[in-house]
Formats: sequence, C-alpha cells, structure tokens
Amino acid sequence: MKLRQFQTIVSEKADVAILLNPDSNVGYFCENEIYGFACLIVPAKKSPFLITSLLDYEQAKEKIKLEVISFREKKRFLNFLTELFKKRDIKFKNIAVNKKALSCAVFENLKKALKAKFVDVSDDLKKLREVKTRKEIELIEKACRISDKVLSKVLNIFSRLRTETDVEAELFYHAKKYFADRSFKAIIASGRNGSMPHHTTKNKRLQRGFCIIDFGVKYKGYCSDITRTVFIGKPRKKDKELYELVLDAQTHAIKNVKTDMLCKELHKSAVRMLKEYGKYFIHGLGHGIGVDVHESPSISPFSEDRFKKGMVFTIEPGIYVPHRFGIRIEDVVLLEKRPRVLTRSSKELIVF
Amino acid sequence: MKLRQFQTIVSEKADVAILLNPDSNVGYFCENEIYGFACLIVPAKKSPFLITSLLDYEQAKEKIKLEVISFREKKRFLNFLTELFKKRDIKFKNIAVNKKALSCAVFENLKKALKAKFVDVSDDLKKLREVKTRKEIELIEKACRISDKVLSKVLNIFSRLRTETDVEAELFYHAKKYFADRSFKAIIASGRNGSMPHHTTKNKRLQRGFCIIDFGVKYKGYCSDITRTVFIGKPRKKDKELYELVLDAQTHAIKNVKTDMLCKELHKSAVRMLKEYGKYFIHGLGHGIGVDVHESPSISPFSEDRFKKGMVFTIEPGIYVPHRFGIRIEDVVLLEKRPRVLTRSSKELIVF
Repeated sequence: MKLRQFQTIVSEKADVAILLNPDSNVGYFCENEIYGFACLIVPAKKSPFLITSLLDYEQAKEKIKLEVISFREKKRFLNFLTELFKKRDIKFKNIAVNKKALSCAVFENLKKALKAKFVDVSDDLKKLREVKTRKEIELIEKACRISDKVLSKVLNIFSRLRTETDVEAELFYHAKKYFADRSFKAIIASGRNGSMPHHTTKNKRLQRGFCIIDFGVKYKGYCSDITRTVFIGKPRKKDKELYELVLDAQTHAIKNVKTDMLCKELHKSAVRMLKEYGKYFIHGLGHGIGVDVHESPSISPFSEDRFKKGMVFTIEPGIYVPHRFGIRIEDVVLLEKRPRVLTRSSKELIVF
Repeated sequence: MKLRQFQTIVSEKADVAILLNPDSNVGYFCENEIYGFACLIVPAKKSPFLITSLLDYEQAKEKIKLEVISFREKKRFLNFLTELFKKRDIKFKNIAVNKKALSCAVFENLKKALKAKFVDVSDDLKKLREVKTRKEIELIEKACRISDKVLSKVLNIFSRLRTETDVEAELFYHAKKYFADRSFKAIIASGRNGSMPHHTTKNKRLQRGFCIIDFGVKYKGYCSDITRTVFIGKPRKKDKELYELVLDAQTHAIKNVKTDMLCKELHKSAVRMLKEYGKYFIHGLGHGIGVDVHESPSISPFSEDRFKKGMVFTIEPGIYVPHRFGIRIEDVVLLEKRPRVLTRSSKELIVF
C-alpha cells in the first residue's frame, strides 16, 4: 500500500530508504505478510525491490509484485548491499530508516558499512499508515466479519467448554476454518481473572461471574480485535447495571468520534461516563489497527493524536476492580463522514 | 534463570542494567512470559526489580518473585526511571543495555534522558542463555514431549484432513489441550509447496507427494520445534531413497555432535551426506532453542559458534527441489556427555 507516497517522502529526505524485517512496513508496502529476513529498498528515483534470504526467495517471488533478489550469507549482507547499490547506480549518501523498528545493533552495523547520513522516517510511516486506503478498509472489514462469525460459533458451544484455554482453542480453530490466523494471543479472563486486562488465559475451570473474551484474527495481513464480556451464572441487578455502564460509555464514545478531535478528549469523556468507576478504567480507550494490531492513533489520556477520516481504531472502555472482576467491550470503528462500527457482534449481555 | 550470574556481569561492566520489552531476556530472568510494556532493572549491587504498566501490574505481581513496580504514563517513563534511581540511590553513570533488542528510537531517548555511558551486553546475554540450566532442560523436555503427543494425535486423524490449514488448526487445538501455546506459526507444506522452507500454510487441498509438518509448542515459556515429512499417495522407490538420504544425514549429524566442535563443521558434514542433493539444502542445519524458538548457537556454514555441554538445539537437514518438492526432518537435541534427542516421534516415512 502507498508505496508511491512513501517513495515521494524518501525523495524529499534521502537518496534511498532501507526497511529491514522485523518491521511491519516491509509487509505493508509489499502487500503481503513477509516473514524471516527481508529488506525493502526504496530508492528515491528507481524502482523499489525486496531482498530476501535464499530460503524465502521462491515464495516471495510468487507473492510479491516488486522485483525480488535473493542472497545467502546474512553476515555479509551489508557488503552485498553496498555492492548492489553501486552496481545499480543507487546513491546512498543519505539513507532513510525507521528508527522505531531498527535495533541499535543493526543500526550500528549499517552506519559502519555504509558511511552515510541517516534520516529517521518513523513519523512519516506512522502518518502514512494511520489513514487507510479503500483496499485496506475492505481487508479489515473482512477480518472483522470473520471475528464476528468465529465468536458466534464459539458462543454457540460456550456452555460446553470447561476452561479458559478451551475457549482460546475453539477461537483459533474456527478462525482457521475461515482462512484466518490469530492477530494476537486471545485473552479469556473469567471471574476475578477479569480484573487483569492482560490476563494470561489459564487452563483452569471457567469461573462464575463476568468472563472477558478478547481476540482478533489476521486475514490477508490485516487485523481485527474484538472484546465481548459474557456472564457465567446468574447476574445480580448490580452486575447488569455495571455492564450497562460500560456499554453506555462504549456506544457513547463511538457516537462522539469526530474528525480533528483530539483522541485524548474522547478518552476523557469515556472516563466521565464511567462515573465513580472511572478510576478502575486503567488503560487507553483504544488504538489504531491495520497491519499491526496496535498502531497509530493512540486513544489515551497521554496521546497528542487527532482523529482523521479514514482512520480505523478500536473503542474499548473497561472497568477492572482489583481481585474481583473486569468488564470490557470493544469494537473496531472506521471514521468516515461518521464513525462506522466494523465488528457487528451483539453487545447485549449474554448469560450462561 | 541465571539472574545472579547476569548481575555479576553487570557489576563488572556497569552500575545498572536496563532491559526493556520486547526483549525475551526480561521474561527469561523473571522466569515467566512477560507481555506488554515491561522494564527489568538489574543494579550492580541492589536487588533487581521489574517495572510494568498499571494494566499488567496485578498479574506480574502474582507471577513474579522479584519486586514489581507499576507506573502509568509511558511517555514520562524515563523521568519516572531517573527519579526512581535517585530515590533508591542506584547509580546510573554506566548503564548496561541489550543493543540487539533495543530499538534506535528508544535508545536515543535513553541517551537523552539519562546522560550515561552505555555498555552493550548482548553478547554476554547470548552466552548466558545458550547453555541451559537443569530447570530449563526439564521445561524444554516437557515442551518436546507435548509436541510428540500433539503430532501423534494429528497423524491419527491426518487422512480425514483436507487442507494444510486443517492440519495447522488441529495442531494448535491439541497443543492447547496439553496446556501449551504455539512457539511459531506452523508450516504445513504439501506437494510442490514443500520446496519453500518457509511456505505459508494454505487453505487448499493437501497435495500428493511429500508433506512437511513443522511446528512447535511453548510450555511455561519454553519452546519445542519438530519437523516430520509424511507422504500422501504411493511413494516411488526414488521417493523412499530421497527420504532415507535426508534421514541418514539427520541421524548422522545428531550422532556426530561433540563438545567444542565448530557448529559449521557439523553443517558441512550434513551437506556432504546429502551428496548431489547437498545443493538443495538451502538453510542452516539447526539453531539453539529455549525461551526463543531461534537462539544461540547457530548451526550454519557462516557460524563461529561451538557446541558446549548443556546446549539445546535443533538438527534439521532438508532438501528443496524448486517447484517440485521438499523433505525436512527435525529434532530437538540436548548435548550432555553425548547428544540426547528430546523429540521422540518416529522418523519412519508415514504414508497416507
């Protein structure tokens, strides 16, 4: 996606850009998931190309539209690269890199081998990626649709499942049946485990009370992320009220997203909606989503990001009462003229 | 593991070490998988402690033996850290970091905020981790045992599975039933897909011919990694001979591992064993395994590593004839007085 726009940025700031795996921008620009060693070269004025190791070459060549070059010996990669630049008459006095993805060790090697001036383009990449193209939106929509279907399958058999791990196993299994992978390790947190937003799913009997199901799929390189909280046992009036409190905060936040609004303002209004439970809302209201499950914008009290048309992000308020319970409700939202919710699973409290 | 040894190294080279997620050493020293933002502080002379964000705090405190401190605002983390160092009277003139895991962007922020001299300890960490403790070996053995069981389950129903993705779904499902996660995305490569060592598992009918099944599990933070190649259809005499060729190279390599031997020598002898097919062996013979599925040593023609007692690594020769087929056989091996194979699944060619 947007490889031409990126090339324009490169031409304004440097002679060539070097993007090295692990860096999700390599896959983003190649419009394919790229595993293993891979280096995307974007010269200011010549055609971009991808360098992979010999063992990834055949597959990359099949999948990617750009020219693909293979090489064998990783340790000599920088010599190989310098010679290639010279042979292809690609200038490399000024090199654009993504300092957020590049490790210090690799960067120091780059500096030694190429003796160039390096320009960080991580902010440009962030901005490029936070607004999605039509094709990206289609893929994210498809990923969201799959997670809705997977969730529905798993909720249908939920009462037969015994442990948090069972739920995780079924989610993955059904995602695979819809040709998708997981976008992150699912969080299944029942009973008091729910009070830990990043609870590690356990192989213990599902506990009574609220149960948070937070998962996502990755389809053709694009992620979804959805959370529903169900109830195991008989909810008291107070439980229902707390669930409605979080749900109101969530729907209210979605409704109020506006172009140019500061993301942190939306977060703050969600905290206010949660009233005295606002103090138990201990994470950001949401995050951009695309090739990475977490990307720009950040919707947190510390963010300086603003909402833009074409952004896709989660809205996921939650309350976490230490050692007692947790409730979180999360959807993926696309901001067009108005916000549009891409995950469509019901948000009524389901009781098992 | 080995936190004390690491502290000794820190005390020789610096005042304090700062290890920041994503860096598998954080989880390694905490003896737990640590997700999300986390920073391990190892002072030369005071007790090490972990800093996590508020949303991971409750869980970290439950799981980890070290002191855990929480903080909220990521952007102000370095101010928080500096103040903490001063309050606790921890010197930070010389700071040890892992330059292989630290991104340039974070490192530049560290340099600005702490105005210290930084010492890279990535090589020390590599050496510390490549030789396993008894407890680590037990966990890796357990992970290997689980992958044997999972493989057996899946081979039992293999003839009923239609696609490569079906195989992947079943592998994951059964790993979960044994309380494990996957250690990497499984590679299921049938027919001509087998010629791509990193083939992306496809949702298409399993093709006739060799089918590579390469997967691993992660159990209590430790990885396994195993490959078996089965045959779909009726193998010709030549197919059986090729399978035996790879199998001989693999068992021969395992038998010949010796303490102090250069890893690249073992690789070269495996290439020789493959005779005229040696040119189709396009990756390294193996890699260390532990908290990470790929760690030191590297068993490749370009490696300068040597085998040491207590190392755990894979031995996985393969041949990949472009556009035609692939065969790979992989085990996890522990080097004690003699090499001991930890994955025990049968290596006879199974035909479906």
